[in-house]
Amino acid sequence: MHKKIIDFQKGERVESFYFIKALNLKTSSNNNKYLDMRIADSSGDIDAKFWSLSPGEEDMYEVGDVVKVRADVTLWMDRLQVKIIKMRKAEEQECNFDEIVPCAPVDMNTMYDFVQSEIQSMENEDIKKITKYLLDKKKEKFKYYPAAKSHHHSIRSGLLYHVYRMIKLGKSLVEIYHVNSDLLIAGIILHDLEKINEMNAKEIGVVDEYTKEGVMLGHIIQGVVELEKAGKILGTNPEVVLLLKHMILTHHYEAEYGSPKKPMFIEAELLHHIDMIDARVYDFEKAVLANEVGDFSEPIFSLDRRRIYKPNL
Amino acid sequence: MHKKIIDFQKGERVESFYFIKALNLKTSSNNNKYLDMRIADSSGDIDAKFWSLSPGEEDMYEVGDVVKVRADVTLWMDRLQVKIIKMRKAEEQECNFDEIVPCAPVDMNTMYDFVQSEIQSMENEDIKKITKYLLDKKKEKFKYYPAAKSHHHSIRSGLLYHVYRMIKLGKSLVEIYHVNSDLLIAGIILHDLEKINEMNAKEIGVVDEYTKEGVMLGHIIQGVVELEKAGKILGTNPEVVLLLKHMILTHHYEAEYGSPKKPMFIEAELLHHIDMIDARVYDFEKAVLANEVGDFSEPIFSLDRRRIYKPNL
Amino acid sequence: MHKKIIDFQKGERVESFYFIKALNLKTSSNNNKYLDMRIADSSGDIDAKFWSLSPGEEDMYEVGDVVKVRADVTLWMDRLQVKIIKMRKAEEQECNFDEIVPCAPVDMNTMYDFVQSEIQSMENEDIKKITKYLLDKKKEKFKYYPAAKSHHHSIRSGLLYHVYRMIKLGKSLVEIYHVNSDLLIAGIILHDLEKINEMNAKEIGVVDEYTKEGVMLGHIIQGVVELEKAGKILGTNPEVVLLLKHMILTHHYEAEYGSPKKPMFIEAELLHHIDMIDARVYDFEKAVLANEVGDFSEPIFSLDRRRIYKPNL
Amino acid sequence: MHKKIIDFQKGERVESFYFIKALNLKTSSNNNKYLDMRIADSSGDIDAKFWSLSPGEEDMYEVGDVVKVRADVTLWMDRLQVKIIKMRKAEEQECNFDEIVPCAPVDMNTMYDFVQSEIQSMENEDIKKITKYLLDKKKEKFKYYPAAKSHHHSIRSGLLYHVYRMIKLGKSLVEIYHVNSDLLIAGIILHDLEKINEMNAKEIGVVDEYTKEGVMLGHIIQGVVELEKAGKILGTNPEVVLLLKHMILTHHYEAEYGSPKKPMFIEAELLHHIDMIDARVYDFEKAVLANEVGDFSEPIFSLDRRRIYKPNL
Amino acid sequence: MHKKIIDFQKGERVESFYFIKALNLKTSSNNNKYLDMRIADSSGDIDAKFWSLSPGEEDMYEVGDVVKVRADVTLWMDRLQVKIIKMRKAEEQECNFDEIVPCAPVDMNTMYDFVQSEIQSMENEDIKKITKYLLDKKKEKFKYYPAAKSHHHSIRSGLLYHVYRMIKLGKSLVEIYHVNSDLLIAGIILHDLEKINEMNAKEIGVVDEYTKEGVMLGHIIQGVVELEKAGKILGTNPEVVLLLKHMILTHHYEAEYGSPKKPMFIEAELLHHIDMIDARVYDFEKAVLANEVGDFSEPIFSLDRRRIYKPNL
Amino acid sequence: MHKKIIDFQKGERVESFYFIKALNLKTSSNNNKYLDMRIADSSGDIDAKFWSLSPGEEDMYEVGDVVKVRADVTLWMDRLQVKIIKMRKAEEQECNFDEIVPCAPVDMNTMYDFVQSEIQSMENEDIKKITKYLLDKKKEKFKYYPAAKSHHHSIRSGLLYHVYRMIKLGKSLVEIYHVNSDLLIAGIILHDLEKINEMNAKEIGVVDEYTKEGVMLGHIIQGVVELEKAGKILGTNPEVVLLLKHMILTHHYEAEYGSPKKPMFIEAELLHHIDMIDARVYDFEKAVLANEVGDFSEPIFSLDRRRIYKPNL
Repeated sequence: MHKKIIDFQKGERVESFYFIKALNLKTSSNNNKYLDMRIADSSGDIDAKFWSLSPGEEDMYEVGDVVKVRADVTLWMDRLQVKIIKMRKAEEQECNFDEIVPCAPVDMNTMYDFVQSEIQSMENEDIKKITKYLLDKKKEKFKYYPAAKSHHHSIRSGLLYHVYRMIKLGKSLVEIYHVNSDLLIAGIILHDLEKINEMNAKEIGVVDEYTKEGVMLGHIIQGVVELEKAGKILGTNPEVVLLLKHMILTHHYEAEYGSPKKPMFIEAELLHHIDMIDARVYDFEKAVLANEVGDFSEPIFSLDRRRIYKPNL
Repeated sequence: MHKKIIDFQKGERVESFYFIKALNLKTSSNNNKYLDMRIADSSGDIDAKFWSLSPGEEDMYEVGDVVKVRADVTLWMDRLQVKIIKMRKAEEQECNFDEIVPCAPVDMNTMYDFVQSEIQSMENEDIKKITKYLLDKKKEKFKYYPAAKSHHHSIRSGLLYHVYRMIKLGKSLVEIYHVNSDLLIAGIILHDLEKINEMNAKEIGVVDEYTKEGVMLGHIIQGVVELEKAGKILGTNPEVVLLLKHMILTHHYEAEYGSPKKPMFIEAELLHHIDMIDARVYDFEKAVLANEVGDFSEPIFSLDRRRIYKPNL
Repeated sequence: MHKKIIDFQKGERVESFYFIKALNLKTSSNNNKYLDMRIADSSGDIDAKFWSLSPGEEDMYEVGDVVKVRADVTLWMDRLQVKIIKMRKAEEQECNFDEIVPCAPVDMNTMYDFVQSEIQSMENEDIKKITKYLLDKKKEKFKYYPAAKSHHHSIRSGLLYHVYRMIKLGKSLVEIYHVNSDLLIAGIILHDLEKINEMNAKEIGVVDEYTKEGVMLGHIIQGVVELEKAGKILGTNPEVVLLLKHMILTHHYEAEYGSPKKPMFIEAELLHHIDMIDARVYDFEKAVLANEVGDFSEPIFSLDRRRIYKPNL
Repeated sequence: MHKKIIDFQKGERVESFYFIKALNLKTSSNNNKYLDMRIADSSGDIDAKFWSLSPGEEDMYEVGDVVKVRADVTLWMDRLQVKIIKMRKAEEQECNFDEIVPCAPVDMNTMYDFVQSEIQSMENEDIKKITKYLLDKKKEKFKYYPAAKSHHHSIRSGLLYHVYRMIKLGKSLVEIYHVNSDLLIAGIILHDLEKINEMNAKEIGVVDEYTKEGVMLGHIIQGVVELEKAGKILGTNPEVVLLLKHMILTHHYEAEYGSPKKPMFIEAELLHHIDMIDARVYDFEKAVLANEVGDFSEPIFSLDRRRIYKPNL
Repeated sequence: MHKKIIDFQKGERVESFYFIKALNLKTSSNNNKYLDMRIADSSGDIDAKFWSLSPGEEDMYEVGDVVKVRADVTLWMDRLQVKIIKMRKAEEQECNFDEIVPCAPVDMNTMYDFVQSEIQSMENEDIKKITKYLLDKKKEKFKYYPAAKSHHHSIRSGLLYHVYRMIKLGKSLVEIYHVNSDLLIAGIILHDLEKINEMNAKEIGVVDEYTKEGVMLGHIIQGVVELEKAGKILGTNPEVVLLLKHMILTHHYEAEYGSPKKPMFIEAELLHHIDMIDARVYDFEKAVLANEVGDFSEPIFSLDRRRIYKPNL
Repeated sequence: MHKKIIDFQKGERVESFYFIKALNLKTSSNNNKYLDMRIADSSGDIDAKFWSLSPGEEDMYEVGDVVKVRADVTLWMDRLQVKIIKMRKAEEQECNFDEIVPCAPVDMNTMYDFVQSEIQSMENEDIKKITKYLLDKKKEKFKYYPAAKSHHHSIRSGLLYHVYRMIKLGKSLVEIYHVNSDLLIAGIILHDLEKINEMNAKEIGVVDEYTKEGVMLGHIIQGVVELEKAGKILGTNPEVVLLLKHMILTHHYEAEYGSPKKPMFIEAELLHHIDMIDARVYDFEKAVLANEVGDFSEPIFSLDRRRIYKPNL
């Protein structure tokens, strides 16, 4: 059974699966190489020192790796720390990612099938084809990628979970307002897809770093470029391509958040608000998760330093 | 049958019901008093001069009055204008407001009954009672008031229509996210209720001017005050009163738009986004109403001067 | 005689009255409960550990309590710290608050009587009554409350001292400009009164934390609500109530500082400037208190990081 | 007796003193030169055409001149206009400036003597000397200059009136707070003195245009330069010169209003607030001058488009 | 010889070449169709009415057409206007564009050859090829396009002239600083190239309107897309493509001006400043063109309403 | 030979020249005075403790002094630190400043002669004289002063190097655009000259602190004042003085960066851009100095936290 980091106590020996959140090869005062690490699971993270490296182990690990660890829990400078005795990379089937990293609360295949079925039920053939084409290209990664490095939905399958709930919301809006359903759902599915090329994440669903293209162009611009290329390959109606490009380009709404234009038709406008609502619900839920009713959270950075309240109803 | 202003042609005589959009008593060059007016119906508006005032007619009319008019259509400085021959105030039952002013597209009683039934189905008795109490106090005006003087939903029953669609959207969100339905729906019903005391509107549903309290305090602050008073009278659970006050106070979100605090729980946060979406849908729909597909509107002031596009799909 | 914290020296034993500025119940490495505290007096503050808790002492104290302390001054990590040997709550009459916390430089009763006499000399009966009514409701706390948790006038009786000097300034303006004295003085007395419900402060005059209403509504909105209620009870002229509400609402002037409207008559405008001047004088005086003439202070956060200069004249 | 412009009626002939507010030499359709003017007095202004220019009259007049005019009042495009029959420049002693332009409500010599006596009673000899030196250099113009082209105190002797009331306010502050009286009063007297070189105004007290230095440097920078030069000539204590320079430099407070630094000692800080209060009182008084009690003004540009209210007390 | 519009006089008949700046088909009061136009040449523009349309002429013309016009100069409402008697489209060889529209002061072929020779002398083959490829695709239009609809370089060949002077400046920087010449020059040539697809301009070099892609995406985004496509076709080194994309994306520098990222290497940073300098020089030169030395221009909108001065040296 | 700080190793004894970057006289736990220092050379800096002060040594040293040091390298809290055994002030001729502080890459006399020769070749005698006069007054310090305390060009002779490269750039612009060469070059030479009075720097070229005038007025205002005084002494053409003052005043361009006016003629406009380019090139070069090609730097504060990229070309 998995031993949660939050349950570690001074003096005990632990053995379980964790992932590497940070990793530095250092030299000790007696001139030996050792790994200065931060290992984590879904309950938290902890400093870890791996002093007794075997030959070849120096370059064997990287951030995002899931590892099996045997270690002793010690106290250093008033904080718990683990001293690793033995470590090896885990095989995927050995361990349960749900225990090791925070994951979306809905099964990834359930969510993915839902998205695919939504594409299937589209009526406009051009929108249907180009959406399916772009999604299929990213299929594997789309299933486990988080939606961010450290902001909202930075959990395993967070990107998919974000899209999944946004589609549900989009379908409600279609019931109430006179909007083009295909366009809106396609915009939702595609809006963050290029995050997969903007950030590097391993299968564990944790982002290591941004890619060179991610830093210099960003997923919005990359998304517009991918639409252009897909449109050319599929011979998509240029109006469809232009509308989808515009939706991707404008979905952050404000110039300072990366959208050089503002939405110019209703589906683009709604895409932004749906995106916003889903991100905010995520942040509010997370903010009060550990709170009692009637209490305020600490100031939350991503919510303009607001303190979030858990109503006593 | 009603004669639409948009159909007026030079030289014809018209006789129908219109409302007074602007009104000034002036003195002509030969020292006679006359009324310099702008009369309107749901199709548009036109300058009107009433030269031949009978004794007592000088002060008989005011902005927002519905009047029966007999007039000749003339041309002056390249523009059409009417010369009024006879005018009198209309009785409510004589005319059809739908022809005279832009009205919400859903019947006001249908919408009002929907709102009331939503209150009936609330589970929290405190929320139910205070919402019903406040709504009932404004019942008559709530049915025909516009939501604004010149911005979104500035149509007859615009405030009710705004609330009606927002409730529908709110109910969708309750299906998707874990939020308190009673709180959210109550917030939607109450959020703009004090607009009725912020602006003066006649039964025709057109705002004449802001009230003194409206200019100096505004409907947000007035709304908070009304909640306090209702809570005291009804003996409402203080937590409920506080939460609803906070929702009213924060629903404009940004300080510069009149909210001194930002939402601190999820229902308050969602109230803002629902309000925003409904206002934006209204503005986008209005912007392209007269456009061809594939065309852009003129820059729209309330949408940051964006030109709105009507997709060609 | 009181032993000032600033005079503590390594190795000595001290015994005097202090107040608790921060307080945490912790568990030591050998699993005993102890209190990790910060105790303070008007000269400064210092870390304090109370290791030898008697049964029941764990929950006996809270922030803001004045306590009698016997302790040894020790050095830990290059900083002085006290190890508490014995501690008990103090009775009010035992100690001199002036030694324990920074206090306003004028006697609280002198200041309070001045405020009351200003009310007595008002000519407008409506303004006089409502001001007296609201002040009397808060009489006790108004005498010792600070004006802030950590900003200007965050001293014992700081709120009263702030009002006291503002009235003096207001009276000068009445001499120079044509303004309504009653309105201006009433606005000054009432402008921050609801800070008493916005923050929790014990008799020592130190704010522990913000109240729930304080965080979610703020003293400005609460002040407007209180005026409405008082006006209803006293049957005050509605114009007077509206004017005073507007003064409270607008006294922070900028939307970003909590005022959704800007002053619309001269007494409201002046209230803001008087408030500003008194706060700024306080901040400037405090900034250079310990400086030599000809020197600059460190950058002061509340003054936009300005360095304040002490002129050499 | 002076004939006020506000009393002009169609068809009458008028003859009195006015000043030239705007002036353009134009060519009529029959190729004659004529003057297209706007003449004004303290009651208002009106368009004026001077068709029958005598030889040499084309270049005889300029903006700010006081002229004696004989003219016929006519109506053109629904507005009154005067057709000038005869015009000549007025001698200073012929006319009463109070009738022709809005003037400060206190006699200029009374105010000027007050300022001088304030300088006389200064204790610091350096401050006293440099203030007197700089004031004496501008003595004549300081008496009649307005404080602005079109903003606050844009009346004859407006600059002096502004300083006069500011000194009164400054003296009140000295009573209440611990500040250096000489420094504060000197700062008040000198703060806008270089407006005299920033704008061109004739004796009538109306600004024609900004000077080249005014446009390219502004009165704040020019004021600092003048202090430096005066300090060098008088051998003033460098600390005094620096403090006064800093007061001039910072009195607009915000970078966007022309102050590259913010006040760093209390007298500089107070100078800004005193300046602000006096300007605001002026603007508020002017805004409601013509209003009924209980009414709002139109939006006032210099007050962020606020509508100012005249309380009904 | 060309008859300049600025020289038109009432009553004369003119016959020459002009271009159509604005064009509306209207119906006169006697129900005939006529063209309400604004025709222009390099000296100015003037209203023109073409009443006597021949069959088929209604739809023959559009904005940007160069036409040969025979017309009478008349006066209407105090302004000159022409009544067109005869009009026909001009052949390119018939007329001299320099007389009809403002043109760049250097010959277009000279400038174009200079740009091409700069490409020839590049050392990096990837940069050279992709730059040449993209330029050649736009060759014809690049020669005569203006750089803007109404801002800087909105003259015939304005885009080319802008690039021409920027290259000269870029080459100077290469002499002084250690930067990659090929990258910088390529960035200069490509930075605004997609303006050709953002705006519609006829050969006359005057922009009629923005394209649909121009409004919804803009030339910056279109430029990035074009680079991607060219890179794929030519097999360009991906680093080169990424760097050039980043230069295009960032050259407006500020998010609010359309660049979602800021420059991250020195050549991209310099591209922005070179662009800025050349635009500003153009605006300053234009601002004082008609001024005397020692005078200020009117406030210039594109220069933050600054008044520009012509030094008297 | 100089021993670089970056090469220090635990346990070794070092003896060389360094400069004092920070200095505090402290009291040890056994009540002895000691110097807690940070010493530096061009390779880096390191903490240093000087425990064994001789009598008189307590006040002998100050920040910016170059000292000869004999010390032992030790380890404390995982960081290297030196324990000084012996220390004395160095004579200028003893040591090589290039080894001790970062210096401009061009010889200071070469650069200085270049600047002087540029002045010599000016044609306008007024500009030439006033520029030479002001430069000569600062000659000695101008040679070694840095351009900033911690921003761009904060190296020995950094100010001169900044001016040197700016002149080269200015000369290029004169070749391309029609601008007044003398005015532009004079503006470049004078624009930051008063930094010498704004900051205190010893001959080592490191800024210790800002002067009182620097904090309260700043080099821009001081520069305008110096021009006025020089103009009076030399009898310079007032137009020249005004133009140069305006160039100094506006060269930071934005109000928030200290320029109360924006450039109003082209040479002032260009001065800003030249200044900007040279500062940015410096910052970009420094940012990637230690980077591999293909890598990003850490976020750079002075470049809006951009990460700078070193292209792989």
